[in-house]
Order: sequence, then structure tokens, then C-alpha cells
Amino acid sequence: MTDALTRVSVPTLDEKLGHKWKVLDDGFVRPIDYLGSDASIVQAARVSYGAGTKSVHEDAGLVRYLMRHGHTTPFEMCEIKLHVRAPMDTWRQWIRHRTASVNEYSTRYSVAIDSQATTRPTDWRAQIRSSRQGSSGTLSLQTGAHLTAREKLLHNLAREIYEERLGADVAREQARKDLPLSTYTEAYWKIDLHNLFHFLALRMDSHAQLEIRAYAEIVGREIVARWCPIAWRAFCDYRLDALQLTSLEVRLISALTAGNSKEAETLALGFGWLQHQDEKLRPNRERTEAEQKIRRLGLVPPW
Amino acid sequence: MTDALTRVSVPTLDEKLGHKWKVLDDGFVRPIDYLGSDASIVQAARVSYGAGTKSVHEDAGLVRYLMRHGHTTPFEMCEIKLHVRAPMDTWRQWIRHRTASVNEYSTRYSVAIDSQATTRPTDWRAQIRSSRQGSSGTLSLQTGAHLTAREKLLHNLAREIYEERLGADVAREQARKDLPLSTYTEAYWKIDLHNLFHFLALRMDSHAQLEIRAYAEIVGREIVARWCPIAWRAFCDYRLDALQLTSLEVRLISALTAGNSKEAETLALGFGWLQHQDEKLRPNRERTEAEQKIRRLGLVPPW
Amino acid sequence: MTDALTRVSVPTLDEKLGHKWKVLDDGFVRPIDYLGSDASIVQAARVSYGAGTKSVHEDAGLVRYLMRHGHTTPFEMCEIKLHVRAPMDTWRQWIRHRTASVNEYSTRYSVAIDSQATTRPTDWRAQIRSSRQGSSGTLSLQTGAHLTAREKLLHNLAREIYEERLGADVAREQARKDLPLSTYTEAYWKIDLHNLFHFLALRMDSHAQLEIRAYAEIVGREIVARWCPIAWRAFCDYRLDALQLTSLEVRLISALTAGNSKEAETLALGFGWLQHQDEKLRPNRERTEAEQKIRRLGLVPPW
Amino acid sequence: MTDALTRVSVPTLDEKLGHKWKVLDDGFVRPIDYLGSDASIVQAARVSYGAGTKSVHEDAGLVRYLMRHGHTTPFEMCEIKLHVRAPMDTWRQWIRHRTASVNEYSTRYSVAIDSQATTRPTDWRAQIRSSRQGSSGTLSLQTGAHLTAREKLLHNLAREIYEERLGADVAREQARKDLPLSTYTEAYWKIDLHNLFHFLALRMDSHAQLEIRAYAEIVGREIVARWCPIAWRAFCDYRLDALQLTSLEVRLISALTAGNSKEAETLALGFGWLQHQDEKLRPNRERTEAEQKIRRLGLVPPW
Repeated sequence: MTDALTRVSVPTLDEKLGHKWKVLDDGFVRPIDYLGSDASIVQAARVSYGAGTKSVHEDAGLVRYLMRHGHTTPFEMCEIKLHVRAPMDTWRQWIRHRTASVNEYSTRYSVAIDSQATTRPTDWRAQIRSSRQGSSGTLSLQTGAHLTAREKLLHNLAREIYEERLGADVAREQARKDLPLSTYTEAYWKIDLHNLFHFLALRMDSHAQLEIRAYAEIVGREIVARWCPIAWRAFCDYRLDALQLTSLEVRLISALTAGNSKEAETLALGFGWLQHQDEKLRPNRERTEAEQKIRRLGLVPPW
Repeated sequence: MTDALTRVSVPTLDEKLGHKWKVLDDGFVRPIDYLGSDASIVQAARVSYGAGTKSVHEDAGLVRYLMRHGHTTPFEMCEIKLHVRAPMDTWRQWIRHRTASVNEYSTRYSVAIDSQATTRPTDWRAQIRSSRQGSSGTLSLQTGAHLTAREKLLHNLAREIYEERLGADVAREQARKDLPLSTYTEAYWKIDLHNLFHFLALRMDSHAQLEIRAYAEIVGREIVARWCPIAWRAFCDYRLDALQLTSLEVRLISALTAGNSKEAETLALGFGWLQHQDEKLRPNRERTEAEQKIRRLGLVPPW
Repeated sequence: MTDALTRVSVPTLDEKLGHKWKVLDDGFVRPIDYLGSDASIVQAARVSYGAGTKSVHEDAGLVRYLMRHGHTTPFEMCEIKLHVRAPMDTWRQWIRHRTASVNEYSTRYSVAIDSQATTRPTDWRAQIRSSRQGSSGTLSLQTGAHLTAREKLLHNLAREIYEERLGADVAREQARKDLPLSTYTEAYWKIDLHNLFHFLALRMDSHAQLEIRAYAEIVGREIVARWCPIAWRAFCDYRLDALQLTSLEVRLISALTAGNSKEAETLALGFGWLQHQDEKLRPNRERTEAEQKIRRLGLVPPW
Repeated sequence: MTDALTRVSVPTLDEKLGHKWKVLDDGFVRPIDYLGSDASIVQAARVSYGAGTKSVHEDAGLVRYLMRHGHTTPFEMCEIKLHVRAPMDTWRQWIRHRTASVNEYSTRYSVAIDSQATTRPTDWRAQIRSSRQGSSGTLSLQTGAHLTAREKLLHNLAREIYEERLGADVAREQARKDLPLSTYTEAYWKIDLHNLFHFLALRMDSHAQLEIRAYAEIVGREIVARWCPIAWRAFCDYRLDALQLTSLEVRLISALTAGNSKEAETLALGFGWLQHQDEKLRPNRERTEAEQKIRRLGLVPPW
């Protein structure tokens, strides 16, 4: 019968179903199952347009158009399920994305996984100075070696006490109360492609914490890139690597391209970006951000 | 490699992918794609329990346990995509379920579908008397024949004017403004099994409007029953056909089973269920509901 | 006791609670109640930072920082409830925003509101030519007068038949099936500020349909501007009037600002933007979009 | 002007805004702000019915009717914001409710709160035997004293190492990685009343973990009961203390009320509830559940 359909499948992802991409010292991400493909995005958009299939070239153009214009609903028609193993500390950030379906390993029901994320002596990161959150550079090897030894001591004591509690018949739900946040957990995590792109935009960002970025990079570059390559390319071109100019920056840059650096400076002054203290420009986050964008466009800040 | 997975598939649903189940005079429901199966529910629950697969018998028992106890997250691990054609009037109810992904045919982009839900002379339903909403019984054939003729007149005029507008180059987004709610629309609709069960519990209910019930019956009994038969059976046993007793009703029924109909009556009096007007019991919705439940349990209301 | 709190209130909005802003010929928007203010956004952000209140100046800076960087969760701490009256046709678009709470007037329970959105002879809009959806300009007064008369005819017949059905005791749920989409409906609509900004970004956009834009303009410029003026200003500066450059456009513009229009053209060629047909540039949406952005930045496309 | 409105307020809750209800050894819950009241539920329902206000008595009846029949949307029209301090271990369960808005104290941005949930020697709970999760009874005082001393040792070492890391300039985002789950965190948590009732139904349940139940009890009995007393009462009567009978249990109980215990036993046999092992009934969860319900209704299981 003409209405009959064969299920959409994506051979490049099928080959990798179940594959464990290692992340951190003992974590992983595995694609388990999926629904839809680039073609499903097109199909969903075309129902809106009341039109059927077109050429591959036109299909790619449509997906790219949807991405560029924030027509997000067709991307919801693709869904993926991952199996993730991550430290609870990272998982605390991950779970803040409320649009996913989740089943996590229960330490109320089962004995906690006996593995904690460990840090090599070379991997202790220094607190960043330019903002309140983030890290920058690493500590000396000597300091690192000490910290790693102390980390091991803590992990050992925490596990010893956890097992001591279980041995004394403490309920698992209570015995777990002092597990370190570095303890690994596992979960199935299922999300649609639109919401996954939102996750990736935030978690592949350079301001995201190194640990969750490591997971996001795998999910994006290894899994989504295989699953929906056209949408992935569009996401990179139009969102991940895009540059958002505020209306203030647009006015300032227009002055610069007109060769009117005096006006640009007057604008910046009006924005409150050029206040001085002790004859030096006072730090101003918005100005710093603008400077980076101006330079990315090949221009020079006039102040 | 041992981690490699083959995609979960459900042959009994695969056979029917794309199949059009007709609903109403010109509507349909078609399953397009899906993710997961009964086994995926089990798998998701077992990650919580840190356990692997068990026997088929135990798996069914687990799914049924999850349904009985409202452990809903494992059911979110299954997802289905349907292609639906329904009158806008019905779609207005359907779209109130906010947990689905939707792409609807756009009458802003394309010419509206030239089809309206029509009513046969035998199918005009009378306003129900016992409550403010719903219908009960049908009108006479003579009345029905007149109403059907008038319906046709209205449909014809509405379409004529719609096409007249398009012919005069009125923008489609404006030309559509007076389409009757009976006009058919189409959509892709994608939802997870937990939220689908919620939809079905509400829309297969005897208080749901006949039109949307017709769709829900197909989705439940033809599609979900083929896709996840164990979960479907559990849904019927533990939710669709379940009986919810309020704490008031529990107290009253306990009095009845103890043979203490005097106490039962005193309780009902205290609940305010037995107020009289002109020597007759005043209508009271909660009492009426209790009576039905009492009778369903093989007991007799004592008043 | 020191923990005691007085409820946050916003006098500039309190003055307007319940006020009906008229929209279209018979619609309105009314603010009914709200939770939070600009200060609540700051408070929520500061709990993340473990810090207390600061100066008004710093508070505004923080709200603006959050908006600029897409830190959206503090904006969810403000919530507003509106009373809306809109044609069902407009409401169909409105209800697609799934993150709101909604209670709509029920034509299943009550008789439909006896009012339809009408179109004056001067207000019939022509189909836009440059894209598939939207309108541009208006039709001649003569055509408009004819269309308006026909509209009236249809509204009258539709209402006559609706009332005829009710008179014949047709159930309200069925009688309503042919109401024109222009029929007014009412609803309470409650949403948090983050999701409201998303609604406004889409519905105040120049591509949104005129009718829903009329509502969105009131909600934004009259209501949100009074309720959370700092957040509103930040929304305008950093989102509503922002300019998003794709990574392709960034590369091209950088070539232009470096005075290298040859390279810019080569890039555009590589993007597939400069294909010719009959010795003319073929229409290409992405190129057209890029041209508009290039001009907004005071530059000139090199092709 | 007649449309003008005064904001809805609830004096019984206003008196307690900001009040800290202590929970566990160092946690709390504080109501911060709210939107709506019992009257808002009625108002939202009445827009559906196209009707205005009625008597207080009828209003209460309407709220109770809505609760009884699962008409949940009017309850979404009330919103509350709480300030919570809870151990991360408890917060991990709390945050699984995805329908709330949340801003949590950030240990990436600020130094972690120096407080861990501690356990008194009398409060160590034993693992329950009848199911895989939960606790039952407490351990001996001698064992408890030992466990509490060891807990203190672990807390001290964990904090010492955390501060050592900060002292060595380790980035806060990394230094926190081994904090015990018992570490307190704080958050603003905002949710509508419908979703809050769902939270309470799950977390006030006797199967919920003791710690989160302690919070849920305060939220329900102290805060919601003051805020929306009519809805709260309806929730208790019709949901919290309700009894859900499966369709299997309905059939079995009907046989019992008809005095037909033979048939009841045959039914149970058909359900697979009465399998024997070594001449004893094999454990069967569904049968055990049914027995409890049968007894709650004043009847006796026939096997």
C-alpha cells in the first residue's frame, strides 16, 4: 500500500550505536538509540508548507534556513538517547537542562559506583582572575602532586566509611550522604535535537567548565555530526560560531566603518564604557566584550 | 566489539508504519516513526537499579510495577511520532497538551486544506442535561437533515469567500481568518509514552468530546497496543480502568463493608451530601460520583 | 524578626492592574497580577553568587549582564498573568508557546462569544511576493469594500446557523464546529519573564503576523516596560535590536573592513551566494540577508 | 475605572513571608513571594465557564470539584517562590522536578557553604528488608555513636582539603569536586501550585526518603495550607489520602462485597497472585498491595 513507510535510519550512526567514547578518567558517552534524521527535519518543515520532498540540495538549504531563522520546531522531530557516565559534580550541571528525559543510577536502590574522578598532578587548574568563575592555567607540578595525594586520601576515607556504613546495615539512602561529588554516576539521557543544540551551545562554550565541555564536545562532534550532519553544520555556521552584536555595538561599529572614530568614542562615552579611575580606563565588562567583537570583525577600538 | 548495539525495533509496529487509520469523515492517524519499546522501559528502570536484563516474565512484572506506582520516568524513554489529520476544532483541544513536539500545516504559508468535517443527519447530538458540558443522544432525523443542509450551505459560502479572497490577492495569512473551525488541518505530533498515556487517560475518558475520543481510541488501541503491548496492558489495568476513591469515600465504604449503614449515612451527612430541598435530596455532584463508585464495588448507597 | 519580608510590588504596574489595552477591533490585553520585579532578577542571580544586595547602579549592570550573556534562569523568577481577548485565529499562534499556563473560555461549556474580528475596507492586505508568507501593502478600496461586505455576510450566516443549532438543542460542543476562526475568545495567560521575552522576540518581530504583533507590542512596550523597566531596556538593547552575524558573514565582513572586497567576493562565491542565471544573480535568501546586515553596519556588498 | 484591579493578597501567608522553618540540622524553607490564591483558581476556572464570581461556598465547591476531577490547569494560575537550604544529597532528588524555576548557590562562583548535614548517634537508619529501597528502624546507640564519630572525621578532612585547595589557588570549580553530598546548598525555587501538588504527592508519600519528606511536610502543612487553604484541603481529601484501586482490585473487591470469597480467590489465582513455593505463598508485591487496600476498606483477603 502506498502509505506504508520504512523507518528512517542513519547508517553512519547505526555503526556507532553502543560505542563508548571515553571522557575524563572513567566516564563515557554512548549513543543508544535515536528517532529521525536530517530528512525528518525537512519533512516536519514541509508539512507546515504543505509540500513534499525536494532535491537533496534544496533539503540542505531548507535545514540551514530553519537554523538561521530560529525556526526551531522541526529540529524537535529528532530525538536521541545517550548512556552517560559522569562524576556527580558534572552531572549536577547537566541535570539543570530540564527538557530531557532522564533515568539515573540510584544509590538509594543500589550500592554506589566505586569510582571517583581523580586529578593528575599536572591537572590542577588555577582560579581565573579576570572574572569570578572559571579557571586559567595550571598549578605547579609540586603543588599538584601534593593535592593529588590528598585527593587520594580523601577518596579512600570516603569509600572506607561508606562501606563501613553498609557493613553496619545503614540504609543505602543514608549511607550515601557523604559520598564525594566526584563519585561517578550513570544515566540514560534522552533529548530532542533542538534542545540538544541549546545544551551544546551552552556547554561547548569556552566559558563552560572543562569537565562538562569534554562531554559536550563528544556529543556534538562525534555523535550529532554523524547523526544529522546537515543540521550539525548549520548549527556550527549559524549558532556556535556566530557573533551576536548588541544594538549598542551595531551603532559603534557603523561609526567605525564610516571612518568616524570620534563619533564611535562619543558613543562609547555615552554608554558609560570609558570611565576613568586614576587616569586609567576602569574595567568594564561590556566594553571588553565589545572590543573582542570589534577585533573579530577586523576593526580597531578607537579608545 | 561488545558494546555495539543494534537498534531496538518493534516488528508489529513496523508493519503498520505509515498506515492510515481513518477517523471521522476525512481525518486520519498514521504512525511515522518511534524510539524504544517495552524493553526500553525496562532498561531505563534497570539503570536506576544498577541491574541488567532479566527474564521476559520479570520484565513484564517490572513494567507493571512501574505503572502501578507512578514511576513515570522510564516511560519517557519511548517516543512516537504520528501524522494526524483532524478538524481545527478538535486540534484546538489536542494542542493543549504542551509536552509534545508539533509541526502543523501552515495556512499562512499554503492554501488551506479544502475539506471540512461534516455531520450526517443522524449525527447531531443533543446537549446533555446532567452537567454543563457534553452531549447525550441525538436529535431527530428531520431536524438533523435540516441542520446538515445548513452546514453544507455555510461550508460552501466559507470556501467561496476564502477563494474569492485569494483570487483578489489577499494575503493567505488574512484570507484564512474566517475559515470554519471544522476545516481540516494536518500535523506531525511527537510525544513520549508517559505523556502520551496522560493524553490517552484524558481523551479516551467518557467525558472527552466524541471527536477527539475517536482519535485517542485509535492511538491507544491500534498504535500503542502494537508498539508497547506490556505497557499498554498495564495502563489499561492500573490507570484507564482504575477506580480512585477519595478519603471521604474510603471512610464511607469501610462503614458499609462493616455493615454499618447508619454510620455511613452519618458520614455522608457530615460531608454535606444529604441536604434536602422540598423533601427531596438536593443534587450533589460529589454524592453522585460516590454512588457510582459504591455501586461499582457491588455495594448499595444507604441513603 | 529579621527574616520577615514584605512582598515585592511594582507601583508603576499596580496602577495599571486590570487596565484594558484595546487591540484590533474588539480585543484587549489586561495585566491581572504578577510576581517579582527587576529586584527579583538580581536577588536570584545573587543567590548563585552567594552575595547580598548592591547599589541600584550595580543591580542594573547585573541585569544587563545576565541578558547579554543568556543567563536566563534569573528572569524566570518573575511571573505575570494577563487577561487576553483575541480572535481564535491569532490565539492559534499564541497557544503554540508551550511554556505558559492557560485557561481559555470554553465554547464547550458556554455559548461562544458573539464577536468576530472584522476587516475595514482599507485593511485588506496583499500577499507578499518576496517570500511565501506574510503580507505587503493593501488592496484597493473598491476591492476592500467588496471583501468587507462579503465578510459581513459570512459572519452573519455563521452566527445565524450557530444560534439555530443551539435553538435546536444541538450540544454546544458540536454546535461550535463551524464558528469562523475570527471569533473572539478569552483567556488567562500566565508566563515567566524569560519565556515572555522569547514570545516577544518572536512576535514583535517584523515577520510576525500583524495581528499578533499588535498584541505583543502592547505586552512589551506598555506592560513589561512598566513592570521590569531595567530588564525591558536590556532586552531591547541586547536582543530585540541585536544583530546576529553568522560565521560566514563574520568572515566576509572582516574582508570588507580590511578593504579586501575581492576576497569578500571570493568568499561569497564559495558560499554559493553568487550563482547566475541568464546573466543575472539568482535569488538567494542567505545573500539577501547578508546584504541587509552588511548595510546595517555601514558597509557595501562587493558584488 | 471599573476595570481597575487590586492585587490579590493572602494575609495569612503575608505574615509569614521570609519566615524560616528549620528542617534537618541546618536546613530551612522560607516563603519569599507568591502570585494568586484560592480565588485565582476559581477565577481561572470561571473564565472557562464564562461566568463571574459566586458565593464563597460555591467557590470552595468548585475548587474541590476541579481537584477531584483532575482539572489541573486552574491550579497553575497560582505560583510560589521559596528559599530553600538543603543538603546536596536531598537537593539531587528535589531538582528532578523539572517544572520549577531554580537559582542555586554556585560553588563555581563562590566558596562552598561551610556546613554539612550531620547525623546524631540515635539517627542511623537500618536498610529496609521488604523492598530494595528505604529504611526501617534505627541502629543501636553504640553503632550510631561510632558512625557519627567517623562522619565527623570525614567532614573535617573533606573541609580541610577543600580549604587547602582554595589556599593553593585551585579554581573553585575544581576545588569543589570532592565536597561530600551532605554539604548544604541554597536555592530559590519557584513553582506553580499544580506542579507543587505533584511534588508534594510524591515527596510527602511514606516511600519518600525521610530527609526530603521533612521539607515537603513543611511546604505542604505550613506554607500551602496558609496560602491556599481550600485547595490544600481538597488535595488532602482527594489526592494525598485517596485510595487508587486497580481494575483487578475492583473485580476482586466486588466479589468480596458480594460475599463470594471463592470467586475472589479464583480471580487472585488468575492474576498470578497465589503461587506457592514449598507449600507457602510466594511473595508477590501486587498481592501485598491489594491486601493492604482490602484491609483499608474493612474487608479481609480470602486467601
